[in-house]
Amino acid sequence: MEKSTRRKFLKTNAIAPLAFATTLGSEKIVKSELFVHHVYFWLKNPNSEADKAKLIEGLDVLSKVSEIKMAHIGTPASTNRSVIERGYAVSWLLFFENLEDEEIYQKHPVHLKFVADYSHLWEKVIVYDSVGTKRKG
Amino acid sequence: MEKSTRRKFLKTNAIAPLAFATTLGSEKIVKSELFVHHVYFWLKNPNSEADKAKLIEGLDVLSKVSEIKMAHIGTPASTNRSVIERGYAVSWLLFFENLEDEEIYQKHPVHLKFVADYSHLWEKVIVYDSVGTKRKG
Repeated sequence: MEKSTRRKFLKTNAIAPLAFATTLGSEKIVKSELFVHHVYFWLKNPNSEADKAKLIEGLDVLSKVSEIKMAHIGTPASTNRSVIERGYAVSWLLFFENLEDEEIYQKHPVHLKFVADYSHLWEKVIVYDSVGTKRKG
Repeated sequence: MEKSTRRKFLKTNAIAPLAFATTLGSEKIVKSELFVHHVYFWLKNPNSEADKAKLIEGLDVLSKVSEIKMAHIGTPASTNRSVIERGYAVSWLLFFENLEDEEIYQKHPVHLKFVADYSHLWEKVIVYDSVGTKRKG
């Protein structure tokens, strides 16, 4: 598939789950849409290691929701440049197969319980939901 | 390894590359540190599909840098809640084995050429670098 054709294809199918094949050199690769849900948590007590640990404990339980394909829990790295946001306490990165699975997760009892039990810990969350394909990995 | 011990271990080794084993039920899982580099691009011409496509073309080439373990290119999903940031045009998510690999990537000629050739397209970038472990996937 030519690049321009592929782009058009991607654009018109941005939301729907899809899988298509492309050719890179002689290697045939199947690319499938992936829904990336990335949440950054700012704590009410940003210096409380106990609150951070408690939040991570809650996220660890939350990661068991079966619709979640990949879960990563992180904290800010040591990198420090003007464009890097370092004020958050915890990064919560999830992969879903598609939008539908992410919506199931949002309404899942385990998720609702997580919000009920842990939301007192955070002051702010920023969520970035993006849809696209893996280019590698 | 007990949860509390693991947390302490994680805390004191937040930056260094590491791999350790933990037991979940009867299943033994090896968790290794992962460096997550997530960049969000705001375009100078936010409504230009051509500029967005050009940026994605550049990122596609950039994804070939060998230190990159996983690369995902996305655009904002259809989800729309108050906590969701939807103003950016392109999401660029990378996994690296560790901080060292991310630093090699930052100084890589392919990365420097990408910035030289494409930075006129964007108005703003926000970068979130976080270090942690996969809980799943």
